[in-house]
This record gives sequence, structure tokens and C-alpha cells, in this order.
Amino acid sequence: PNRVAPIYKDCTIPESIGRKVNCKHLQWSSPIKNVLIIKKPFDQQVSSAFAELVNFIHMAYPEISVIVEPNVAQEYPHLHLFTWNDIKELHAKADAIITLGGDGTILHTASLYAQTNIPPVLSFSMGTLGFLLPFSFSSFQKAFSQFYDSKSYVLRRMRLCLRSSSRNIKSPYYAMNELHVHRGLSPHMSVLEVYVNDEFLTEAISDGLIVATPTGSTAYSLSAGGPIVHPSINSLLLTPICPNSLSFRPALFPESFSITIKMSRKSRTRPQLSVDGKPLALLEVGQCIEVTHEKNTGIPCVIRNYDGDDWVNDINNLLRWNHPFHRKQ
Amino acid sequence: PNRVAPIYKDCTIPESIGRKVNCKHLQWSSPIKNVLIIKKPFDQQVSSAFAELVNFIHMAYPEISVIVEPNVAQEYPHLHLFTWNDIKELHAKADAIITLGGDGTILHTASLYAQTNIPPVLSFSMGTLGFLLPFSFSSFQKAFSQFYDSKSYVLRRMRLCLRSSSRNIKSPYYAMNELHVHRGLSPHMSVLEVYVNDEFLTEAISDGLIVATPTGSTAYSLSAGGPIVHPSINSLLLTPICPNSLSFRPALFPESFSITIKMSRKSRTRPQLSVDGKPLALLEVGQCIEVTHEKNTGIPCVIRNYDGDDWVNDINNLLRWNHPFHRKQ
Amino acid sequence: PNRVAPIYKDCTIPESIGRKVNCKHLQWSSPIKNVLIIKKPFDQQVSSAFAELVNFIHMAYPEISVIVEPNVAQEYPHLHLFTWNDIKELHAKADAIITLGGDGTILHTASLYAQTNIPPVLSFSMGTLGFLLPFSFSSFQKAFSQFYDSKSYVLRRMRLCLRSSSRNIKSPYYAMNELHVHRGLSPHMSVLEVYVNDEFLTEAISDGLIVATPTGSTAYSLSAGGPIVHPSINSLLLTPICPNSLSFRPALFPESFSITIKMSRKSRTRPQLSVDGKPLALLEVGQCIEVTHEKNTGIPCVIRNYDGDDWVNDINNLLRWNHPFHRKQ
Amino acid sequence: PNRVAPIYKDCTIPESIGRKVNCKHLQWSSPIKNVLIIKKPFDQQVSSAFAELVNFIHMAYPEISVIVEPNVAQEYPHLHLFTWNDIKELHAKADAIITLGGDGTILHTASLYAQTNIPPVLSFSMGTLGFLLPFSFSSFQKAFSQFYDSKSYVLRRMRLCLRSSSRNIKSPYYAMNELHVHRGLSPHMSVLEVYVNDEFLTEAISDGLIVATPTGSTAYSLSAGGPIVHPSINSLLLTPICPNSLSFRPALFPESFSITIKMSRKSRTRPQLSVDGKPLALLEVGQCIEVTHEKNTGIPCVIRNYDGDDWVNDINNLLRWNHPFHRKQ
Ligand SMILES: NC(=O)C1=CN([C@@H]2O[C@H](COP(=O)(O)OP(=O)(O)OC[C@H]3O[C@@H](n4cnc5c(N)ncnc54)[C@H](O)[C@@H]3O)[C@@H](O)[C@H]2O)C=CC1
Ligand SMILES: NC(=O)C1=CN([C@@H]2O[C@H](COP(=O)(O)OP(=O)(O)OC[C@H]3O[C@@H](n4cnc5c(N)ncnc54)[C@H](O)[C@@H]3O)[C@@H](O)[C@H]2O)C=CC1
Ligand SMILES: NC(=O)C1=CN([C@@H]2O[C@H](COP(=O)(O)OP(=O)(O)OC[C@H]3O[C@@H](n4cnc5c(N)ncnc54)[C@H](O)[C@@H]3O)[C@@H](O)[C@H]2O)C=CC1
Ligand SMILES: NC(=O)C1=CN([C@@H]2O[C@H](COP(=O)(O)OP(=O)(O)OC[C@H]3O[C@@H](n4cnc5c(N)ncnc54)[C@H](O)[C@@H]3O)[C@@H](O)[C@H]2O)C=CC1
Repeated sequence: PNRVAPIYKDCTIPESIGRKVNCKHLQWSSPIKNVLIIKKPFDQQVSSAFAELVNFIHMAYPEISVIVEPNVAQEYPHLHLFTWNDIKELHAKADAIITLGGDGTILHTASLYAQTNIPPVLSFSMGTLGFLLPFSFSSFQKAFSQFYDSKSYVLRRMRLCLRSSSRNIKSPYYAMNELHVHRGLSPHMSVLEVYVNDEFLTEAISDGLIVATPTGSTAYSLSAGGPIVHPSINSLLLTPICPNSLSFRPALFPESFSITIKMSRKSRTRPQLSVDGKPLALLEVGQCIEVTHEKNTGIPCVIRNYDGDDWVNDINNLLRWNHPFHRKQ
Repeated sequence: PNRVAPIYKDCTIPESIGRKVNCKHLQWSSPIKNVLIIKKPFDQQVSSAFAELVNFIHMAYPEISVIVEPNVAQEYPHLHLFTWNDIKELHAKADAIITLGGDGTILHTASLYAQTNIPPVLSFSMGTLGFLLPFSFSSFQKAFSQFYDSKSYVLRRMRLCLRSSSRNIKSPYYAMNELHVHRGLSPHMSVLEVYVNDEFLTEAISDGLIVATPTGSTAYSLSAGGPIVHPSINSLLLTPICPNSLSFRPALFPESFSITIKMSRKSRTRPQLSVDGKPLALLEVGQCIEVTHEKNTGIPCVIRNYDGDDWVNDINNLLRWNHPFHRKQ
Repeated sequence: PNRVAPIYKDCTIPESIGRKVNCKHLQWSSPIKNVLIIKKPFDQQVSSAFAELVNFIHMAYPEISVIVEPNVAQEYPHLHLFTWNDIKELHAKADAIITLGGDGTILHTASLYAQTNIPPVLSFSMGTLGFLLPFSFSSFQKAFSQFYDSKSYVLRRMRLCLRSSSRNIKSPYYAMNELHVHRGLSPHMSVLEVYVNDEFLTEAISDGLIVATPTGSTAYSLSAGGPIVHPSINSLLLTPICPNSLSFRPALFPESFSITIKMSRKSRTRPQLSVDGKPLALLEVGQCIEVTHEKNTGIPCVIRNYDGDDWVNDINNLLRWNHPFHRKQ
Repeated sequence: PNRVAPIYKDCTIPESIGRKVNCKHLQWSSPIKNVLIIKKPFDQQVSSAFAELVNFIHMAYPEISVIVEPNVAQEYPHLHLFTWNDIKELHAKADAIITLGGDGTILHTASLYAQTNIPPVLSFSMGTLGFLLPFSFSSFQKAFSQFYDSKSYVLRRMRLCLRSSSRNIKSPYYAMNELHVHRGLSPHMSVLEVYVNDEFLTEAISDGLIVATPTGSTAYSLSAGGPIVHPSINSLLLTPICPNSLSFRPALFPESFSITIKMSRKSRTRPQLSVDGKPLALLEVGQCIEVTHEKNTGIPCVIRNYDGDDWVNDINNLLRWNHPFHRKQ
């Protein structure tokens, strides 16, 4: 591939990146030439921001080609946009990614790279606040220049790697937030066996199970009762969904571990596997999903502040973590 | 109808029924003549217990007719069993009910009476322990005689009454454990508005919502994080399923209240309504489900001990409530 | 005693009181003559409101005597206030109670009547919002006139009744929010046995145990993980504090039950009993605290709206129950 | 000091140590000569095991000196035991540690090294099962020989490092399980400010706060609702104790972070700081406790199995994690 290689440099002074061990200084080995832009569909505001962004890049960085999803290329025939026939062309070309939309847009972008590693991602939000979205669109020119000029810092958000011997799932498959197995519409609870490093851990009779990344700890796992895990702690978070037990508590395993979920013969229902909220397959009796972490498969997300911690703001302002009762007028 | 009317007598000395206000002394106004027997299907042990029970009744109480589900009548042509074509015939006939199986068998029995009130229920378990099952089959002769001789005590387990203006749900519809509304296989959370006595209470963005009876507090609601509620406290228990909020906590409302669940226009998915675990309908945008409690619609379940409290034993032994850590060998 | 008897009339149309079964229409058998006013101490704003209220009563209702706590009588020698030497004088005199302050002021008021039944309470807040505080002081004249003229509705908030054979606790002792037993400063967990109707329920190894009223369900019990219980459901809520077990879940018992907490011989620490947050005694090995509910010992609290439900507003606005994540700007 | 230096070697094949990144092969640079033995007091069984162990060491390893706590030396004058006057002598001498007792004995041992780093620890349990106790005493000879012969593997359990500018706490002070700040006997909740890397995180109004290690995640933090964290994930776990908020959820921070707990001016009570369950000091208004992780201050605990995972067994067998309901006889 002719992609421009990003270099992720450690920061010698940890304080300079707020002691976040997963943060790196992003440097380009040569100027980037192909940028993938992913936009949220059906949103008027996003569409005009998109046009503005494309025009800016074409004007200010004429040597950069803009790549978009096939349907977007069709929608904007006059904008000189590139697209792909085979997703492998995209994987070979795009040096960097820009997203315009919300958390869902980033998750969708990650799904385009669900089976390969992913270039650095610069995300803009419009109106909607989101947990994975550092930059407001209003400052897009400055943010892009810094990104282009190797002056950005990225948080390498780990992804989970799924493998299954069955053909209904293409392996490896990467998850940004989580994978979950759920009974879906079946009235009966799913019965799943869980193994850790091939050692039996537990049998889960429940609506389902989540294995989340630290990034995903503030998504579905949080709703299911899981803890909040800082994205700098690489780990696998196992959270049950409505377990038929009083004593099932979320548990964290080191990134070096493998967690295997096996559909038990006792299960009266075929539960559904979803990745980042997207249904992937119905499990078969005896089918195993092995979940691990692989080096260098994380998503390099450009961060707003490299010295402070966006995350601390976000859990307070967006999640309203430990929001006090309202006592004073 | 020519059903024998059960009389539920208050106990003058509350201590004699363990202070359980929902417990009554069951007295028959005249000898019972038609008994419905519901058995768990596909279970060898249950089938032989069933044959034994039928033979016993025919021998010892020749004036009693035994009614069974149509497929059971077909399966045992030689046993002199009665059945029904129209469920209304059953409702008009059966004076009392016996169940053989597990909790699921009782829930199935309740579903046969989901739109009308239900005669007293005497339940036997075999092998499987269950939360709703007082009697071991081994003592079935004694248990039945006491029941027949007006020497039993019943716990009147309240049911919820559902009503909806839409035609996809027959109203009223009664729930023994709970009703729940769930996103099912949809990747998107359901958005539901909740009203209490027609006053807006909250908007729930979540996998779904449960409205449970005290009986149901140890079923799905417990898995979703709800409290354990003694069946003598008539009340409506609202428990969220994986809510997208850090501050959604289960809440209990008095039996005199109505809780209405409305599918919001914001919901990107049509959530599914289930009663006692059985799917009933997909909700439509704007559709309302009103949940109330109606007098005298509860299920009169014969209890093992009228002075002690089966329930206290069951939460300890079956649910392993407050099971201590294992410290000593 | 020469107290004016309050009459609590059922409402014939439950809808007119928002279906709240514990709500009653308060009627005075003759005009009230002695009003106890309890004010929050050390608060400038409360003090001027107090003076304003006393002057208003003296002007508009000259036949009413105002009773205050001994230290308040001393503080305002010129205001023609009455007080007591022996608390029994107060109990014999006061027909009605007004509180000025916050939830703590109401709890303090309840503690003055911790061993006897309590007259109707009209509460005013200033500035501070509170869960038990219906009226803003700004409308105090109207609120008092309605109260005086038998036009108010009260919510009868049930209290718990504590009894102990040991002399370190005066029995009976009434709790408005809860009683709790806690290890306090001891490094070791307390070991407590719990009995329900004198039947063994469980052994709790924990920081402590709470037995709360529905009113108290939004106080300490909520912090310890308990459900929210509407004050119209008379019941006893048992909530553990940091239990040394994965499977201890809050449980609700009917008001007709007794819950007994016994300090176990295994306890390496003498835990402390508190009522409504106030330390009462250190338990002795083997000491039992019996908790029951007694008819007509509740606190009649005047409510703002007799048709709507203050409580629904309060759990939303004060407790921020099910507060959504912040997604939109 | 003349201590024998332990060498902690990485395992080249992670599978050989069950992928536990915190596990190391323990090798002695020269034969150990001074062994500290800590025994649980007042326990007949432990006392005879102690005598047996000392005799074994004296017989089989005559060149090893056995060091014990001063009171134990006095209790066993005939056993040729050494002890210390100044704790610094102990720190300079002991090459290795053996504990006989329960989790509490290990925590007590750690407290002897609360201000310095700690030599490898080999623990034996008798009768009592514990979470931190790998070896049964019955196999003590084999376990000790392997330990002596550099054939053991250790799990380096991280400790927390506390620092405070106030003189009531000696800094640094190390915690094996957790530190917690608690209102103690005060009826009022404590008000604590929490800072992360000197950035304001939240104000906690609660009974208290816990900052736990992964080891401590199965101790007090678990009781307070925290997740289970595998000891191989170095991290700081913040868990609230009965918070006065519906939305306070446990949170995990990277080991590179600092968490500071500051007693707020708003606090009406002086909360107590405890380390590993032992009271250390009453906080003063404005006092800050800074919690960090320092390299090489962990506790090297000899593990039973270096290929499987004791921890997986322990959460299942001891904590009864996800213990199923009891359905079958
Ligand atoms: N009951 C629940 O909480 C459920 C949650 N989900 C979550 O939704 C995600 C998919 O998101 P969308 O496609 O946008 O679906 P969506 O449009 O249904 O939105 C899910 C919500 O989660 C938020 N979100 C996504 N990732 C997040 C993160 N890492 N931290 C904090 N908030 C986050 C989004 O901003 C959005 O508000 C899944 O990965 C899963 O985590 C999916 C199903 C049920
Ligand atoms: N994640 C979960 O916990 C889910 C639970 N359910 C529950 O299953 C019930 C239907 O039961 P089945 O038809 O037997 O389905 P099932 O065969 O899937 O069994 C459900 C389990 O719940 C137990 N159960 C049922 N009612 C109970 C009660 N009141 N208290 C304690 N345990 C109880 C049964 O003994 C059985 O072990 C529903 O009413 C719902 O409460 C349904 C779906 C998911
Ligand atoms: N960790 C915790 O949550 C603790 C809570 N408490 C609670 O404090 C109460 C004593 O209150 P104060 O004397 O004012 O002490 P306080 O001045 O320490 O305030 C306790 C807080 O609880 C609120 N509160 C009191 N009763 C309430 C109720 N029924 N529903 C909702 N909020 C309520 C008050 O408004 C105040 O914000 C006790 O009855 C106990 O419930 C006491 C100790 C610890
Ligand atoms: N409510 C609670 O759960 C409380 C727990 N504790 C815990 O007790 C510890 C002190 O222990 P002891 O001196 O033995 O006091 P203790 O004799 O009161 O026992 C505490 C219990 O916790 C267990 N334990 C200790 N560390 C553990 C760990 N890392 N994982 C799993 N279980 C563990 C012990 O085996 C024992 O059963 C403190 O570090 C604190 O974590 C202290 C106070 C209250």
C-alpha cells in the first residue's frame, strides 16, 4: 500500500500528556495525500459542514484527495471526490480520516476498518455532544492544520479482536466499544459458558454478556451496571446483561488475557452477537467467540487537550457522573 | 357459569398466618367438581406423576371430572379426561387448578386465564425447585385432601392489569410476574415515556422497562437490579433494563396508581411487549400501555405453611440471597 | 390532654387525592389554640421568617399561643412565646406544628415526638430545597389559613416503631426515615442476625443495616443502593450497608411484619444504633432491636397538591432520578 | 542493608504464567539467611503449625535465622527466635517472609512494611480460606523448598502510595487493599473533593470514599459495589461508600495518575482515614491525601499455580461470583 505511515512517539515527559500512557505524539513520515471523510447521513447541518470542509481542503491543500463513501460520492458529483469499489482500495489508500457527526459516525467509521488496522481519526461534532468527539466544527481549520503539520496528539483507543471458527463470522473482527451476545427477541434467557485463557470461568444464564473496551465502558456496559474505565487502561471488561444470579458483578481482565464465550448446549435460544451495536450473527450451539487484544490494532483518535484530560470533563458534563442532588434554589 | 365459588376468609388472628395480609383461608361453598390439571410437557417424570394424580382423583373422588389441555387429552385417550374447544368453556367449568411442573408451568396456567379471573391453584414440583412451587409431589394425596376439605390457606398473588387502545393487544390482559417492553433485536435503544396517574414521570432511553408484581420481583426485575418485594405488599414495581442513564433506580408505586408506558416518537425502533416472558405485540409509535391493579384478579395460590413463611425460606435457599463468602473449610 | 383532635377523613373519590391511599383530608374538631413552631438554628434567613410568622399569627389569630423550644424562647424574650420544662407538657399542649428550615428540621421535630404520636405538621422551606418540604415560605399566610380552616390534606407518613428489652433504649421509639446499625469507627465489620416475625432470615456481615420507611427510602437507604418507594406503600425496607456478600439485595416487607436485628456473638465490634441519623446507643452482644409498624403513629404532613403528586416532581427535580445524559448543546 | 536481593525475571513465554503480566519468576541472588515469620495471634492451630514450621527450618536449613514479632519471641523463649527493637532492623534484615493465618495476617504483615518496600511473601492458611492465601499448610515443606531454591513464581501485587503534607500521617505510606475515608460515628455525611492529576474531578457527599488496588477490589470496594479487577491490571479504583447521589459509579484510573482526596470546608464532620482497614488519622479541614502508584513498591506474593490462575478459582469458590440460583434438588 502507498499509505503515509503515521509515527506514534512516546512523550518523554508524561506530565505533558496528563500522564495518559496511551497518548502519543502523532507525526507523519511524509505529507498526507488521501483523506477519508465520513459524514453522518440525513443531517442538513452536517451536510453543509461537509461541503465547507471539502472546499477548504481543496483550496488550502490542493495535493490532498478526498475520499468518501460511495453514496456520498454520488450525492456530490461536482465536488471532485474519490470513492472505492472494493473496501481494500480504501484500506490501501486513506492516510487519515475525518468524521463529521456523532459517536455513531465514529463507530460506523471503525466498522469500515473492522478487519484491518485504522489510520488516525480526527472527529468533529456539530450540535450533538458525544463522548468520542473532541473537536467542535467551528475550529476545524486550525484543528486540521495542526493534524496535517504533525502537531497533534492521539489517544490510542484499544480495540477487541474477535475470532470464531464458524463461518458466520469473518475473523479477525475488531470492536471499538464492545461485543455483546443477547437473547434478542427470544423469551428465554441465553446460556453462555465463559472461559478465561481456555480455563472455565462461569456459566452465564442471562439476557446476555458484554465484553467491552475501556472506551466502551461508558456505552452499553455502563447501562448494564459496569464501572467507568479510563481509556488509558488496556483491559477487557466483562459485564453481564440482566443475569439470573444475585452475585454476578462486572469483572476486568488484563489485555493479555483471552475471554471465550461459548453458546451452551443448554441454551434454548440462539443468541445474537453484535459488535458496536451492529448485529453480526446468530450463534450456533457450541460456537465459540474468542476475544483478545492485539497490539497496534487500536484507533488513534486525535485529542483536544494533550495536557488536561477531556475524559474527566466528559464523564462530568456528558454522563453527569456523581451529579449531586438539587438542594439549593 | 356453574363454578363452585371459593370463599376467601380473613384470619382473625394475623399471627396464625404469619402476619401475611394477603393470606386467606380458602373455603369451598360446595364440593368442587371440575379440576383443571396443567402439566409441563416433554418431561417423563412429570408424565408419570400426572398419571398417578389422575388415577388417584378418579379413585378417591369419583365425582370430580379432570380437565386437561387439548393436546394432553389426545395423548392420554384412556384416562377419561375432559378438555375444551373454546377457552370460555374452561373458564366456566374449572373450580380449581392443579399444576405439575415448574414456575414456567404456573406462568403458563396463568396465561390461560390472562383475560379473566382465576380459581385457586395447587402446585406440585418434581425435582426442579421453583420459587412459585410450594408442594413436593411426594405428599400430593394429603395436600389435595386438605385443599378439597377447605383446610388450605392461599396467598392471593396480585396480577397487573394491562389495557391498550390499540387492537394488537386484547384488553384487559393480566400479568402474574411482569410485563416488559424491550428493544429486542433492534440495535437501537427504545425510547419510552412513562406516566403515573396520567402525569408525566420520565422518559426512558434503555433496552426496555419492566413493570412487575411483587411475585415478579424475584424474576426478570431481580436480574435487572430490582429489590425483592414480599408478595403481601400489593404494589407496582418499575425497573429499567439497561438504562442509558446513571441515575435510573427501581421505584415502587402503590397498587392504586396507574403506570402508562408510551412508545415515543423519538424511538427509532418498535419495541416488543411481553407478558410473563411471552411476546405479545410490537408497539406502535404513540401506543400506550396502561398498567393498573384491579381488585380480585389475583391468583390464589395454596401455600405450604400458613404460620411460617415459605417466602423467607425460598429467598434464602433458592435465590441464595445474602449468601456469605466462603471462608471456612 | 387538652389537645384539639385532628380528624383524618378518607376521600371518597380517590382520584381527588391522586389515588394516594395514605392521603387524608385534615379537619379540626375545634379551632386550634396551641401551635409549636420549630426553626432551624443559626440561620439568619430562617430567623427573620420566624419573627414574621410569629407576628402574623399573633395579629391574625390572637387566640393562638405559639410554643417554641426552650432556647428559642430565651432568644426572643419580647415575642410572647411559650415553652416547656418537661417534654410531656409539649405533648399535652401542641395542637399543630409548623417547621421552618429543611428536611433536618422536620426530622428534629419528629425526634421531639419520638415516643408519642404527633400532631399535623405544616412545613416551610427557605432557599434550601428539601424532599419533605412542601411549602415555600413566600406563601405562608395562605398555607396557614387553609391549614387552620380545615382545608388541608395530609400525607400520613408511616413511622417505624423500635423496641428493645435493654435499658440503653427507651421503648417504643419512633423513626421517620430509618434506623440504622453501623460499625462506626470500628475497623471490623458488624455481624448482625436478622429475624422476620421471629423466624431467622439472615446473618449480615457488613458495615451495617438500614430499616427504612418509604419516606426514608429516598434518604440513607437510597445512598446504600435501595429502591425508591412511594410514601403511600406502608412497608419496611431492609437495605444493607456495604455487605460482605455479592448477593445481598434490598428487600421489602409488609407493614404487618416485625424485623428484629440482633447483635451476634460473632461481632468483634459493638455497632451503633442511630435513628433518623441521630446516634442512640451502642448495641450489646445479644441485644435485639424489634422493628414494627404501629397503627396511627405516622406523621401527618400537609401536602401542597392534593390532586397531583409532589413526590413525582421531587424525585425528578430534587433527586434527578433518571436524569438523561447530556447529548445536545 | 545485608538483605539478599530477590531477582524478578520476566517469563519469556507469557502462556507459561497464564498470561499474567504481573507474574515473575523469583530468583535469589544468594541463599536466603533471614526469614520473618508472622503468625495470627490467639489461635491454637496456628500456634502449633508455627512451632512445626520453625523446627523444620531449624533442622533442614540450619543457616537460616527465624525472625518473629517481639511478643512472639517472648512467648516462645526456647525456640531460638530473633526479633527487633527498632522496625528498621527488621527492614534491613529479613530476606523473605512467611505468614501463617488468614488475609488479615498478610495485611498485618504489609503494615509492618507500610513505609518501605517488602521482600517476597509466602503465605500459608490453616482451616480458614482466604483470598490472599495460596498455600495450604499441609504442603509447607515442599512449598518452602521451592521458594528457597528459586523455583517460585510471584504475583507482584501493586500497592498504593499515600502522601499528605499534614503531620498526622507519615508519608509515604503504602496500602495493599485500599485506603478509605469515612464519616465514622459522625451522623453527618463527609464532604470530600476529589482531584485527578490536580484537576478537579468531583465533590463527594457520602459516607466516604475508597481508593483500592486491584487486590483490594475484592475487599471493601466489592462490598461498596465496585467491580472485580484482576491483580495483573495496575490501576486505581475509586469507589464511593453510600454516596448521596444516584449517579456515582465506581471508576478506574491508570496507575500513572494521581488521585487526591481533600476534606472540604463544607464537611460538618472530620472523617477518618484508614489503610487496609486500620484507622490512621482524622482528617483536618483542607487536608489533602495524594494517592499514587510507585514502581517497585508492590508485594511479591508467591503463587500456587504459575500456569493456571488461582484468582479465577478464588472468585468462583470463595466469593461465589455468579453463583447460580438453586433450581435442581
Ligand atoms: N441499553 C443500552 O445502553 C444500549 C447501548 N448500545 C450502545 O450503542 C452503541 C452504538 O451506538 P450508536 O450506533 O450511536 O447507537 P445509538 O444511536 O443507539 O446511540 C447509542 C448512544 O450511546 C452513545 N455512545 C456510543 N458510544 C459511546 C461511548 N463509547 N461512550 C459513551 N457514549 C457512547 C451515543 O452517543 C448514543 O447516545 C453500541 O456500541 C452500544 O455500546 C447499544 C444497545 C443498547
Ligand atoms: N434475564 C432474565 O432474567 C429474564 C427473565 N425472564 C423471566 O422468565 C419468566 C418466564 O419464565 P419461564 O417461562 O419459566 O421461562 P424460563 O424457562 O426462561 O425460566 C425463567 C426462570 O425464572 C424463574 N422464575 C419464573 N418466575 C419466577 C418468580 N416469580 N420468582 C423467581 N423465579 C422465577 C424460573 O424458575 C426459571 O428459572 C418471565 O416472567 C420473566 O420474569 C424472562 C426473560 C429474561
Ligand atoms: N450516606 C448517607 O446517605 C447518609 C444519610 N443520612 C441521612 O440523613 C438523615 C438525617 O438528615 P439530616 O439530619 O438533615 O442530616 P444531614 O444534614 O447530614 O442531611 C442529610 C441529607 O439528606 C436529606 N434528607 C433527609 N431526609 C430525606 C428524605 N426522607 N428523603 C430525601 N432526602 C432526605 C437532607 O435534605 C440532607 O440533604 C438520616 O435520616 C439519614 O437518612 C445519614 C447518614 C449517612
Ligand atoms: N464493609 C466491608 O466490607 C468492610 C471491609 N473491610 C475490609 O477489611 C480489610 C481488613 O481485613 P481484616 O484486617 O482481615 O479485617 P476483618 O477481620 O474484619 O476481615 C475482613 C474480611 O475481608 C477479607 N479480605 C481481606 N482482604 C481481602 C481481599 N483483598 N480480597 C478478598 N477478601 C479480603 C478477609 O478475609 C475477611 O474475611 C480492609 O482492607 C477492608 O478491605 C473493612 C471494613 C469494612
